[in-house]
Amino acid sequence: MKNVGAIPIRAVTVLDKCGQACTVLVVDEMPLTLFLDNQKIVTLMTLGNYPEALAVGYLRNQTFIKTLPEIRSIQISLENKTVEIDTLDNLDMKKPVLSTVQSGCGQGLSLDIDNLEDIHLSHPPLKQSLIYTLLDTLAQSNQIHRQAGGVHTCALCQMSDILGFVEDVGRHNAIDTIAGLMWLNDWSGEDKIFYTTGRLTSEMVMKVALMRIPVLLSRSGVTYKGIEIAKKVGITLIAHAKGQHLLVFNDNKTIVFDTN
Amino acid sequence: MKNVGAIPIRAVTVLDKCGQACTVLVVDEMPLTLFLDNQKIVTLMTLGNYPEALAVGYLRNQTFIKTLPEIRSIQISLENKTVEIDTLDNLDMKKPVLSTVQSGCGQGLSLDIDNLEDIHLSHPPLKQSLIYTLLDTLAQSNQIHRQAGGVHTCALCQMSDILGFVEDVGRHNAIDTIAGLMWLNDWSGEDKIFYTTGRLTSEMVMKVALMRIPVLLSRSGVTYKGIEIAKKVGITLIAHAKGQHLLVFNDNKTIVFDTN
Repeated sequence: MKNVGAIPIRAVTVLDKCGQACTVLVVDEMPLTLFLDNQKIVTLMTLGNYPEALAVGYLRNQTFIKTLPEIRSIQISLENKTVEIDTLDNLDMKKPVLSTVQSGCGQGLSLDIDNLEDIHLSHPPLKQSLIYTLLDTLAQSNQIHRQAGGVHTCALCQMSDILGFVEDVGRHNAIDTIAGLMWLNDWSGEDKIFYTTGRLTSEMVMKVALMRIPVLLSRSGVTYKGIEIAKKVGITLIAHAKGQHLLVFNDNKTIVFDTN
Repeated sequence: MKNVGAIPIRAVTVLDKCGQACTVLVVDEMPLTLFLDNQKIVTLMTLGNYPEALAVGYLRNQTFIKTLPEIRSIQISLENKTVEIDTLDNLDMKKPVLSTVQSGCGQGLSLDIDNLEDIHLSHPPLKQSLIYTLLDTLAQSNQIHRQAGGVHTCALCQMSDILGFVEDVGRHNAIDTIAGLMWLNDWSGEDKIFYTTGRLTSEMVMKVALMRIPVLLSRSGVTYKGIEIAKKVGITLIAHAKGQHLLVFNDNKTIVFDTN
């Protein structure tokens, strides 16, 4: 579950706006290829810090695997940049191949809104002051972003504590890694808050719904379909959350505005 | 090629940080399913303004189709939210299915760096003042972002003129749409500048290389692998470009710093 390699930050020489050479830090990516029951599923470009959690979370969020016990073994080769996951009964062979390799960023929706029919989330009242405390803690945790930029953050939080904090080159890698960490650590979603720096497009909100997390907090904006999904499943949806600012797009009458 | 529907912006009621109801604008997404020779390829979540260009550009950037003349017909159904593309010789059936449905955002690399071996780009000297003029023009063009946020922009530019300007929910949709517009309008890449608000991960730089565009400009940051690809193919790579600021990550000795 922990970081398996050096944090992939590199120093490069650039020219600034005056034409002067200077050094800045950037993140590096690596390709990570996932095999499920010996079948190649996808190659993800990732910082590579959580290959096991990313692989498990990707397969979970793409609905290849419904429960963790379906997995028989996980083999990670950092040399070959592969994660090989075997299931108890060769699950992937039962699925039509074309529905299985689609992936995030609005490109390739394999998540079906019908999967959300049985999801009805709720949570106790949530104080605005707790959200601000959490945002402050989160703002101090983004080590890679602060050094090198070029990454998105996703975090799993309980009250104002951070249980999992993942930075990666794409918001979908980051959310999939959190989904993997939840399974691998046996964390439930019911009493958690999900935070992301990324925009809340429909796929992101759908993944949070499938993770059964009732509160979703984003530093960025949201799409109409994202709001619709949040209302459908009862997710309290807060966007443009930064510092002492936020907008509540679906409140479920649960936010306590205690800071004014 | 033009906008086929209303710009998908909706007004929603939110609670502000004081708990007061107010109205904000958000973008909406729609699913757009691509069929190639009657085979479902992918469902993209998109603003839906350029279904033809998005479909063609997706198939181009995912290397399903190598040249526009391979396409026999394109049928768009806004009612069914589909684009059906038929080729002259059922190209997709020749490819292994698993390599074909992978997609962007660092999730699903089907672009192979070996495809870049023959690409050696160059361009005449580029004045910093022209870049600033272009950035100013671009900043005035992002109608959807300014109204509702939640989108990325990609633009194809020639000197300080904008030929194509696309906003969509994901940076990969936006760049694929530009790739489609280039084919559909018979625009070459050699004398162009590509601009994006998105981060320059390896996949984005690779797509720009395949579009044969020698100058790449981003409002955001860049990854190390993105820089490596730019150096390999000779793309002048400028990131953190906003207002009167920029950092040149690969200069090819072509930037004329004329504003200091």
